[in-house]
Amino acid sequence: MATDKLAPQKDDHFTFGLWTVGNRGRDPFGDAVRDTLAPTTIVRELSKLGAYGITLHDNDLIPMEATSAERDRIVNEFRKALDEFGMVVPMVTVNLFYDPIFKDGAFTSSAPAVRRFAIDKAKRAIDLGQELGAHIFVVWGGREGAEVDGAKDPRDALAWYREGINTLTEHIRSRRYDMRIALEPKPNEPRGDIYLPTVGSMLSFIGTLDDAELVGVNPEIAHAKMAGLNPVHEIAQAIDQNKLFHIDLNDQRIARFDQDLRFGSDDIKGAFYIVKLLEDSGYDGPLHFDAHPYRTEDAEGVWEFARGSMRSYLGYREKVRQFHTDAEISGVLARIRELNETGPAVVDSSSLAYWRERGYAYEKLDQLVTELLLGLR
Amino acid sequence: MATDKLAPQKDDHFTFGLWTVGNRGRDPFGDAVRDTLAPTTIVRELSKLGAYGITLHDNDLIPMEATSAERDRIVNEFRKALDEFGMVVPMVTVNLFYDPIFKDGAFTSSAPAVRRFAIDKAKRAIDLGQELGAHIFVVWGGREGAEVDGAKDPRDALAWYREGINTLTEHIRSRRYDMRIALEPKPNEPRGDIYLPTVGSMLSFIGTLDDAELVGVNPEIAHAKMAGLNPVHEIAQAIDQNKLFHIDLNDQRIARFDQDLRFGSDDIKGAFYIVKLLEDSGYDGPLHFDAHPYRTEDAEGVWEFARGSMRSYLGYREKVRQFHTDAEISGVLARIRELNETGPAVVDSSSLAYWRERGYAYEKLDQLVTELLLGLR
Amino acid sequence: MATDKLAPQKDDHFTFGLWTVGNRGRDPFGDAVRDTLAPTTIVRELSKLGAYGITLHDNDLIPMEATSAERDRIVNEFRKALDEFGMVVPMVTVNLFYDPIFKDGAFTSSAPAVRRFAIDKAKRAIDLGQELGAHIFVVWGGREGAEVDGAKDPRDALAWYREGINTLTEHIRSRRYDMRIALEPKPNEPRGDIYLPTVGSMLSFIGTLDDAELVGVNPEIAHAKMAGLNPVHEIAQAIDQNKLFHIDLNDQRIARFDQDLRFGSDDIKGAFYIVKLLEDSGYDGPLHFDAHPYRTEDAEGVWEFARGSMRSYLGYREKVRQFHTDAEISGVLARIRELNETGPAVVDSSSLAYWRERGYAYEKLDQLVTELLLGLR
Amino acid sequence: MATDKLAPQKDDHFTFGLWTVGNRGRDPFGDAVRDTLAPTTIVRELSKLGAYGITLHDNDLIPMEATSAERDRIVNEFRKALDEFGMVVPMVTVNLFYDPIFKDGAFTSSAPAVRRFAIDKAKRAIDLGQELGAHIFVVWGGREGAEVDGAKDPRDALAWYREGINTLTEHIRSRRYDMRIALEPKPNEPRGDIYLPTVGSMLSFIGTLDDAELVGVNPEIAHAKMAGLNPVHEIAQAIDQNKLFHIDLNDQRIARFDQDLRFGSDDIKGAFYIVKLLEDSGYDGPLHFDAHPYRTEDAEGVWEFARGSMRSYLGYREKVRQFHTDAEISGVLARIRELNETGPAVVDSSSLAYWRERGYAYEKLDQLVTELLLGLR
Repeated sequence: MATDKLAPQKDDHFTFGLWTVGNRGRDPFGDAVRDTLAPTTIVRELSKLGAYGITLHDNDLIPMEATSAERDRIVNEFRKALDEFGMVVPMVTVNLFYDPIFKDGAFTSSAPAVRRFAIDKAKRAIDLGQELGAHIFVVWGGREGAEVDGAKDPRDALAWYREGINTLTEHIRSRRYDMRIALEPKPNEPRGDIYLPTVGSMLSFIGTLDDAELVGVNPEIAHAKMAGLNPVHEIAQAIDQNKLFHIDLNDQRIARFDQDLRFGSDDIKGAFYIVKLLEDSGYDGPLHFDAHPYRTEDAEGVWEFARGSMRSYLGYREKVRQFHTDAEISGVLARIRELNETGPAVVDSSSLAYWRERGYAYEKLDQLVTELLLGLR
Repeated sequence: MATDKLAPQKDDHFTFGLWTVGNRGRDPFGDAVRDTLAPTTIVRELSKLGAYGITLHDNDLIPMEATSAERDRIVNEFRKALDEFGMVVPMVTVNLFYDPIFKDGAFTSSAPAVRRFAIDKAKRAIDLGQELGAHIFVVWGGREGAEVDGAKDPRDALAWYREGINTLTEHIRSRRYDMRIALEPKPNEPRGDIYLPTVGSMLSFIGTLDDAELVGVNPEIAHAKMAGLNPVHEIAQAIDQNKLFHIDLNDQRIARFDQDLRFGSDDIKGAFYIVKLLEDSGYDGPLHFDAHPYRTEDAEGVWEFARGSMRSYLGYREKVRQFHTDAEISGVLARIRELNETGPAVVDSSSLAYWRERGYAYEKLDQLVTELLLGLR
Repeated sequence: MATDKLAPQKDDHFTFGLWTVGNRGRDPFGDAVRDTLAPTTIVRELSKLGAYGITLHDNDLIPMEATSAERDRIVNEFRKALDEFGMVVPMVTVNLFYDPIFKDGAFTSSAPAVRRFAIDKAKRAIDLGQELGAHIFVVWGGREGAEVDGAKDPRDALAWYREGINTLTEHIRSRRYDMRIALEPKPNEPRGDIYLPTVGSMLSFIGTLDDAELVGVNPEIAHAKMAGLNPVHEIAQAIDQNKLFHIDLNDQRIARFDQDLRFGSDDIKGAFYIVKLLEDSGYDGPLHFDAHPYRTEDAEGVWEFARGSMRSYLGYREKVRQFHTDAEISGVLARIRELNETGPAVVDSSSLAYWRERGYAYEKLDQLVTELLLGLR
Repeated sequence: MATDKLAPQKDDHFTFGLWTVGNRGRDPFGDAVRDTLAPTTIVRELSKLGAYGITLHDNDLIPMEATSAERDRIVNEFRKALDEFGMVVPMVTVNLFYDPIFKDGAFTSSAPAVRRFAIDKAKRAIDLGQELGAHIFVVWGGREGAEVDGAKDPRDALAWYREGINTLTEHIRSRRYDMRIALEPKPNEPRGDIYLPTVGSMLSFIGTLDDAELVGVNPEIAHAKMAGLNPVHEIAQAIDQNKLFHIDLNDQRIARFDQDLRFGSDDIKGAFYIVKLLEDSGYDGPLHFDAHPYRTEDAEGVWEFARGSMRSYLGYREKVRQFHTDAEISGVLARIRELNETGPAVVDSSSLAYWRERGYAYEKLDQLVTELLLGLR
């Protein structure tokens, strides 16, 4: 396989958040290790590496207390960079977690004034997204959660959350924006327990909204793994309901702090099946990397991180192609199907033994996939 | 507080599965340690302890390969015991996991014959439930999952699962049974990953069914904890959608094998908030214990386990009453509300500092709850 | 039980890190929410609440780049506050994790210059501890770990770590300080995997040191829980080897990010057994709280947090006393002992049945403990 | 790479437990799915596949209540099969977990008679090992643990455990057997918490034994992962202390029930680093697979499982060779070393900036390893 198959192209639709390559390496126990990167620098460098677009939280670009004039100047400068380097902004999101005002929640803050402020901030971020040409607005409610369940009834929290999202869809409809909302679940961190912690809970919540059609999900691989759930199954349920509006590609060890590792760098087999599902299902949205470089890296390491994210996706995509064309794998799959279809059609006392004793050849299949992934076939 | 507040009464609506007190202590590394208890013995003993009812899988009562005559004899004998000891059967479920035939799934088996058999078995279990007066039919799809995602497309699995449940609701409607289905999610064990692993994913799946009105959820505390999720939040979402049809009370350490511990025995604060939500929300279904005694116990320990399960619920319920009448707790809650309502109504540059700096008094509240639970107030 | 049993006294030996009540609420997704508290303010306020002493990292008190004159002025001022408020400093530790210089490790950095710097910084922190009267020097190697095992051989890391601790014990011996070192394990965060992740691994590592006598462990409850281990068993092994030199009391949900919750606030039964072990074993070192207030709290909440930490310990200690004097609990324990001692002395074909069938009454015992903890007995 | 590089040879020293390929697929929720395989069949089939040897628990071969004559007949027949198929038995272990007698522990049972019986059973298993030519005796204390910490002081449990192992080493010395003991840690399952749950705790415990020289560890990959620990780091500490006497190769998802998956089938990068450590450190003991086939498999799947286990190890070993000879990987490693060695030797105010800002190139290194593993280099 020629190396250039791993060279990303614009039409691969790879996107990165400003906050990903721009991550300064601050963590709960340590200070920032890297300088701030100008958004325009990020646009230029990622474009050179083959990326298709950029995403951002409102405050990744515009400081929270910027004047209107400052805001416009910043947006104009950013748009010029986008044009110059042929980059698009398919998704915008809103930061409802960094400022201390949101310490007890944004849409689910117990304080009505904070809830109103959060909704207004989200509306302004939607407007910014519209201005930058985005068609997806992601909402991650990082502070929508609790440590003390006696303080807030979780049923109230759900009602407030619903009111928040309903107001946003109304805003989009009333402005006739061509934009959809993608809700991003996460089980915990920074809150002890975050409301609507899984893809399933978000999908279910969407069913209770005023304008469910406009709202889908943005699954993040790491978030599913923090709960030990299989991201493939989580994403499949979103696809089953036509609700996979966007996706956050990264990696993570199960059941620990949010690591935001480079996509496909930790769980190789898991990454393969995620790419397989995306490719097999014809997902055609942006392939969005939401991760950050290790804290050990300098600027050079940052760009290796970005380059590696895209190369890995392409490598896994190639493996998916091989899976579908590998004769031995196809043979095993055909044999499994045959066993399934040609056994006794009715299970009764005469056929119970057949159905109890027959094997499914999954050890063989899994070993073939393992060897395919290792490039040993 | 007088001890007799902890004595269970019929109108507390406590129920136990035959398989709970009847658990023989078999585990992956060890043999059974207790003898089989006759279902009629279980009915008698639990009734004496104050329980309201009994639940069962079809095969807890009737062996899988029983003849029709044997079945009828067993059911009659069981009904006689129910009548004699004043016990009801509010819920019945179906065993789609023990027999080797289900090793690759029941409703989601890749073999059509097995899927059909599973659906027929479930229908017969529904009929049994109807015969025993049950109004809830629980489905736990213990084998609906995968270890090898290359073997089965999870989208196919969802479609098959849906077909299965749709057929069951059609059966209930066509027979005009007064029965509803409660789906029980679990993240893993015995399968590597079980499909529809959380309350949220089940609720969302229900939204795609032909007859969603007839289907709700049966959350199990231990199952939520296996994924590190907060059972209170999971149950609250079910209540938010009027889908809490049944509940499985037990306990569990987070992120490990399915322990099925006695309700309220491990996570005391967690159990309190679960009971608080059930009581505050007016849940009036059965309080169903789905746990088993430690493997160290003999028959005497089994009945201590049952007695302790009910006593603990009543103890936590008493704590909930105290929570609502404790003057200092009420005072803190009132102060939090006041801070929320009386601060500046609009968040702007002049009021940002207020909303950033104010505290929420959750440390104080949580300490009061802790001391309440410890009986130190 | 009179409330004043929960009022902390100096001779309870409660201590707090400067960084605990001084925590500003910064987290990976959010900014600081509270102002910096002067160390002297912390000394004063904690003394008023009944605490016995204060602990600190070198840089909690002295900025990393302070001049020698600044350092002396700060230390003098701090000592005056200690004297004024009758507070002691039983333990000092060193910050080898915050500065970017340690991004690839301190004692286990792959860069020899960084390793030397870390050792020198630790020596200076030991000297500071000596100056403040501390007899325990804690080492938490927060950056001693890896995300990429290909970059550093873990055997090299262990050798470097050993060299670091050996140099510190030599320093203590050569200066004839009356000080011992307590190593604090943690499984992960901020590194992907931290070396020597458990109490057991630390104890074992200590056995390989030049001067093992001088080195013990500082178990932190939350760190054991992050790996799903039982803190009681971890601490018991340290006691078994006379190596429990210090302890960090806090709380945590299993298998998630480092929460540093108020001691005894989450896992009530677990906290009880920890206090029981400490009290039963005659542990007489400081009872050190290493936690931080929720991010929702203002200064008032901070002091509630501190007050609650101590009240809870005293509450659990009272429960331990009740456990030992409760007649029914004693009765069950005596019965268990009797069953153990009076059965057939030899297990052979004639006595196998007895030993297989007898019960251990643990359900009853655990229910009694649960009701004791709930104040229902 | 030619496929035959993956064909196992006797001198690869691959071994399997009788209980691995012989696993019948029983689990907590399901019945056995496969027939019992005769030990002699296992010997024959594994030999044909290229395995080097067989391991066993006493009761895998000899029923617990066999007469002396039955025992001898079984052993003779088994030895004949070993000779006929050129297989050895490098390790024997003892089953102290299956029989109900051990329900409260074996070496740590609170009943002295059970403790004595466990020790005697272990001695007989050592004798069996000697007879079969084994030089390693593994002890896995599956029932040495607790659900109720009030029932048993963990310090007593450690003392009893120590007494048990001390008696075994004395037995080995007194009989002049050429045999060493390897203790196998596990965090939980089947007990709520198992004593000595990690490699570190076992190593530390060994330091307290009468005859520590004779005792080392048998790390199992899955057991480390159940606690979310990095098996590479666990094994490295054992090697650091010359205590890696044996190893159990398998795979597992983090923080869930004991899955015992086929080695290298789930966590590909993790398996690579384990093989790298074993090969780089010159480990020359048996490569022992302790896993079981999926429950979906028939006999054919069982042998695919065995074949795949060995093929995967050889595949990973080949990747280790490639890692060491890959020019670009070597280049990055050399560059990292150079940066480490050639920066300013002393960290002071003039060189702080250098050490804070330099990068470590781990993103690049990890991406190269990822592409190497995927066969894309």
